[in-house]
Amino acid sequence: MQISRKALYAIKAIIYLSAAKNKKLCTITEIAEKESIPREYMAKILKELTQKGLLVSYRGVQGGYRINKAREEISFLNILEAVQGPFNKLSSTGTSEEAKLYQGASFDFWKDLHQVVGDKLGKMTLGKIDYAKFYPEK
Amino acid sequence: MQISRKALYAIKAIIYLSAAKNKKLCTITEIAEKESIPREYMAKILKELTQKGLLVSYRGVQGGYRINKAREEISFLNILEAVQGPFNKLSSTGTSEEAKLYQGASFDFWKDLHQVVGDKLGKMTLGKIDYAKFYPEK
Repeated sequence: MQISRKALYAIKAIIYLSAAKNKKLCTITEIAEKESIPREYMAKILKELTQKGLLVSYRGVQGGYRINKAREEISFLNILEAVQGPFNKLSSTGTSEEAKLYQGASFDFWKDLHQVVGDKLGKMTLGKIDYAKFYPEK
Repeated sequence: MQISRKALYAIKAIIYLSAAKNKKLCTITEIAEKESIPREYMAKILKELTQKGLLVSYRGVQGGYRINKAREEISFLNILEAVQGPFNKLSSTGTSEEAKLYQGASFDFWKDLHQVVGDKLGKMTLGKIDYAKFYPEK
């Protein structure tokens, strides 16, 4: 089970974007600087999030990114899965190397744990972020 | 948050060892083969688990490994932390790259999630494994 650095960066970026008032667009450079994320990696992640429909991008001098849904409709699980793949993919019969890692005498425990974590990630939406506290200036 | 491949291998190995009746010793080769873990990596992990006091090793032709505590006294968290380091190390003020990953508007969520997962790993001991089902021959 992994909540990857990439997923954590994606979540930080989307929180930052979703703090923007009046659907204001933000540039890659702005988000990367404010959230201390390497710019090239940020560019790659924002592109993936756009392809998955969580963000919209606009080109040009006034261009940038904004979120594509209401805050309440974007969960941490949505963001994580967009950049990291399906979270709850444990299988008791799968033959992939990943599947085999969890098989055996402790499979039921790992399956339950993934379920609990997946549920919590799914219930945690951007609507629960305290924007006024963390982004008072925006 | 990560439950690493190394930790999953360590847990598999210790479950296998703890299934041995009458404190029978098991060799690296036996565990690696039965649990489909690369032998050299298995050797490294067993050495670390021994240094951390979870296993005892005996040299020689009849040598091998066995667990060093009762099943009920070894939790998944003990095993994971022995090979992967402290699990619950989120800090809202830390300056390490790792700490910074979780800081910001979602820190409280990550902290709670780590707490829940850490608790579950801590409560899951070897005493809860169904040995008769998974290791009927041992």
